Amino acid sequence: MYLCYVSKKILDNIQFPEDLRKVSKEKLPQVAKELRDFIINIVATKEGHLGASLGVIELTIALHYVFNTPEDILVWDVGHQAYGHKILTGRKDSFHTNRKLNGISGFPKIGESNYDAFGVGHSSTSISAALGMAIASRIKGETHKQHIAVVGDASIASGMAFEALNHAGIANTNILVILNDNAIGIDPSVGALKDYLTKVTLDGAPDTDNIFEALNFNYSGPIDGHNLEELTSELERLKHVPGPKLMHVITKKGKGLRQAEENQVTYHAPGKFDALTGDLLPKDSNGLPPKFQDVFGETIVELAKENKKIVGITPAMPTGSSLKYFMETFPERAFDVGIAEQHAVTLSAGLATQGLTVFCNIYSTFLQRAYDQVIHDVCLQNMPVIFCLDRAGIVGEDGATHHGIFDLAFLRCIPNLIIFAPRNEIELRNILYTAQLGLKNPIAIRYPRGRGSIKDWKKPFSEIEIGKGVSLQKGYAIAILTIGTMSETVLNAIERISEKEKVAVYDMRFVKPLDTELLNAIFKKHQTIITVEDGVIKGGFGSAVLEYASEKEYQGTIKMLGIPDYFPQHGTVDELKHEAGISEGKIKETILSFL
Amino acid sequence: MYLCYVSKKILDNIQFPEDLRKVSKEKLPQVAKELRDFIINIVATKEGHLGASLGVIELTIALHYVFNTPEDILVWDVGHQAYGHKILTGRKDSFHTNRKLNGISGFPKIGESNYDAFGVGHSSTSISAALGMAIASRIKGETHKQHIAVVGDASIASGMAFEALNHAGIANTNILVILNDNAIGIDPSVGALKDYLTKVTLDGAPDTDNIFEALNFNYSGPIDGHNLEELTSELERLKHVPGPKLMHVITKKGKGLRQAEENQVTYHAPGKFDALTGDLLPKDSNGLPPKFQDVFGETIVELAKENKKIVGITPAMPTGSSLKYFMETFPERAFDVGIAEQHAVTLSAGLATQGLTVFCNIYSTFLQRAYDQVIHDVCLQNMPVIFCLDRAGIVGEDGATHHGIFDLAFLRCIPNLIIFAPRNEIELRNILYTAQLGLKNPIAIRYPRGRGSIKDWKKPFSEIEIGKGVSLQKGYAIAILTIGTMSETVLNAIERISEKEKVAVYDMRFVKPLDTELLNAIFKKHQTIITVEDGVIKGGFGSAVLEYASEKEYQGTIKMLGIPDYFPQHGTVDELKHEAGISEGKIKETILSFL
Repeated sequence: MYLCYVSKKILDNIQFPEDLRKVSKEKLPQVAKELRDFIINIVATKEGHLGASLGVIELTIALHYVFNTPEDILVWDVGHQAYGHKILTGRKDSFHTNRKLNGISGFPKIGESNYDAFGVGHSSTSISAALGMAIASRIKGETHKQHIAVVGDASIASGMAFEALNHAGIANTNILVILNDNAIGIDPSVGALKDYLTKVTLDGAPDTDNIFEALNFNYSGPIDGHNLEELTSELERLKHVPGPKLMHVITKKGKGLRQAEENQVTYHAPGKFDALTGDLLPKDSNGLPPKFQDVFGETIVELAKENKKIVGITPAMPTGSSLKYFMETFPERAFDVGIAEQHAVTLSAGLATQGLTVFCNIYSTFLQRAYDQVIHDVCLQNMPVIFCLDRAGIVGEDGATHHGIFDLAFLRCIPNLIIFAPRNEIELRNILYTAQLGLKNPIAIRYPRGRGSIKDWKKPFSEIEIGKGVSLQKGYAIAILTIGTMSETVLNAIERISEKEKVAVYDMRFVKPLDTELLNAIFKKHQTIITVEDGVIKGGFGSAVLEYASEKEYQGTIKMLGIPDYFPQHGTVDELKHEAGISEGKIKETILSFL
Repeated sequence: MYLCYVSKKILDNIQFPEDLRKVSKEKLPQVAKELRDFIINIVATKEGHLGASLGVIELTIALHYVFNTPEDILVWDVGHQAYGHKILTGRKDSFHTNRKLNGISGFPKIGESNYDAFGVGHSSTSISAALGMAIASRIKGETHKQHIAVVGDASIASGMAFEALNHAGIANTNILVILNDNAIGIDPSVGALKDYLTKVTLDGAPDTDNIFEALNFNYSGPIDGHNLEELTSELERLKHVPGPKLMHVITKKGKGLRQAEENQVTYHAPGKFDALTGDLLPKDSNGLPPKFQDVFGETIVELAKENKKIVGITPAMPTGSSLKYFMETFPERAFDVGIAEQHAVTLSAGLATQGLTVFCNIYSTFLQRAYDQVIHDVCLQNMPVIFCLDRAGIVGEDGATHHGIFDLAFLRCIPNLIIFAPRNEIELRNILYTAQLGLKNPIAIRYPRGRGSIKDWKKPFSEIEIGKGVSLQKGYAIAILTIGTMSETVLNAIERISEKEKVAVYDMRFVKPLDTELLNAIFKKHQTIITVEDGVIKGGFGSAVLEYASEKEYQGTIKMLGIPDYFPQHGTVDELKHEAGISEGKIKETILSFL
């Protein structure tokens, strides 16, 4: 209690790990308390990811205390848990800018600090990256260097982590994998490995030949991840053990904030909350349109009640995708397969071979993980899997690693695949309905994170004709061709233009197959066309229009708006769209420049 | 010896598994012998994959004998080993058309037979697919059905197989995974799991808690995969064991043909050989230009002698890619990571963070497996990894699963990445040289399978200016813009045109960044442009030219040649290029139509 009355906190004197290393071991628990409070206080008002970082406070301190970072290399998997790391490595004073435009990134990022050894965001990359660094150290003769990957139990179950373990086990390098086992990713962990880890933990001692030892790792643990004494002494010991090592650490996600411990899914990224009580601050969503996620989640339940062939797949995102509603209603027909996008897609293909109607819901950015399976197992075999690509387009604060901006470009080149983007909730609802009626092809339905534009969306179902666009507004000069929710942005932009009767707006809806009949009519009528999408320009929707225009020897001007050839960083969706030239204001400017 | 003198073979009476099941158990070894001879005799003259199928003859017979295929579902991983399966399931009489245009596919393929439960080609998909089918059977109440995946030890070490095992272990379905352990893929297997399997095999009995049991599989084995009695009785037993099962079978790749057993890498796909002696027939490659693979393999050794920072990575293709030369010369700096494309790419990024010069050689079609890692770990962080994309474009007999035709489209949308395609050996050699001098960006160098056009290719190195195309032939009417080896095809096509002075040819070399200066000059001079590439048209090289032309408001005609929007099947490269409209003859026709 003494320290509570000393106004000066230990953390005040810590800017970098070298400062931390001057603190006596006995005082480390106090540092942990202060670091935890610091994070809680800032995330309570500035928002961000909470639970993961609270769970590894002691581990973070122990790592920087024992190892000589940044000379010793520390790679965090995913990075949701790296707030403590950021604060202890020079970013305490900028931590309030976390995830804001031009502020620090919510994830480790090479350009931000030399303590961030590897940029992360997607799961399960840390062991591969750390192994690469360890091999490099060996080649360069830097034998004193330590290489540490911290990876969660949900992430280590993903395929690429296994590939890295399989290589590291025989690679003869100085690598330490720390398995941060809290039995949860964003949603609770699933799978046989998770059950196995639980068993190992409950038994209190490792098996004589456990799964990591089978892969030639020196296994130690399970260690109490909230016991600094235990952590630091074991890390000290492992420093001197050569070869591949795995330390199994048991932590609690949300540790130190009661509500976060009790509601781990909610407090993964809780939004604003009361730092003292931990209570969530009320969000006023009354009168707002629904989230696309909930439209998906509620609609699939509605459809599955009638259509017994419907099954649903999510790789570790039941809550984020709202597939959880389906999982709760039809547990026998919905599957969270863990962080396993590749498996999710080929599993879907397997289900589809047997005549089931498969909704495979994957975030757009994570579908990149299963690109080969989309081509090789679904589209080549023309299996009518229904991909629901959530969080497509600019996602905002999660930043560069998470934007779903490549999907239209990388999917458009695949034969057999239908690509659709709904402009609002009703369109999403109706394409879900249409898809489960029985398509002859696979379809990718991509929609953004967050809310749409229509409050009263639960209308009777109506079938959408595949490959048909619609005219949203007549106009006699410029034609604007849009896709997805950019249609709404364009309509709003036009509202602010005095000569709006000159501007025609078409929601093409399908990036593939293109509505060539509609395009023929547009080419005939309009000498200027502007395409608008919230994906990359290179190879995207506008490029598709261009290809068809070239085929038809269209002689007018086509201007393409979308994400130019750079990686957008983090900020609000509006800020990032403004930067990319596809905000309401920027679109208006472009239109005016052509009028 | 009695049977040898009977003119009628047992195999003559077997067209389908139902015929096989009428054979008495004692005669199955004779069937195995006949099936082996049948394969050897046909592959000896018609070419194809040999060793893998010879290794699973007994397993193939046992599976179709014990299980009620096709009602019971059998999924072969990769499919190199499925020749015996094809012959026993209605394709004995068409087997001589294997891998030929309009003949049967070299891999299982859904459209070809209802015994081919899932189309394969890329590795490690079988467990996911079979699990999907097993879950579907459960949902449909078809509880009697068996679902079997046959997967090799090299394939099971790939990430997506682990994802599938991790799910299958808790999925409560009737699935049997057969681990066909021959310690080799195309090249010898590598990794910690391989060492573990060797240990299990040598110990003769499973550990009490082995790695598969840890994943909740009922493990049985190791079984002698050439003992039909042992195989059939164990499969019979497993039929009645509920839940996930893994049967570990030890086989010898190439079994039954001495040379194939002794030279397993060579006899994976040996080309023509003497069916009686097993000896390879001499190939006359005298006076032919070298393979691009060897240009890569020899050049990287040459460069690595000077540049100590060079390291090389291959995911399981040291022989196919010719990285083996580097591995032999500098074993400390070259790594075969197994069938682990995802890990290979992120490992490369990790190596690059430490200042090493990383050549990551992956077949174009397999890079699809690591698409996210290319975006997220290499390009987003702008790590100057040098990707050497082998077997780009149409690959010929391997067919639809293996063509490297999507790479230009799926890579072109990624910021920071340079994309280059050499038109001949010297260009490949020089871009390898240029890349290791130290680029600021990652680069993808894509080149086809097989031979180039220049015999005398070992010239002194010369640096290639990034983003610069070249004029190959002057002409005043049409401009043809090409990429990679299509440049040679175009030059040859033009040789056959009487008005060839009208046709200008430019090898643009870089798909990204485009040589905009050269394009500006071309737009000024030519009213007709034809782009030619051996990749998909949608989003590819031509599309890049079109995008820039649109930006510059080019008013001429642009015709794009490449692979239209379909999956090319198998056949010779020339046949498939003809079909796609990019053979010498077809290109000539297109040019003439514009003259």
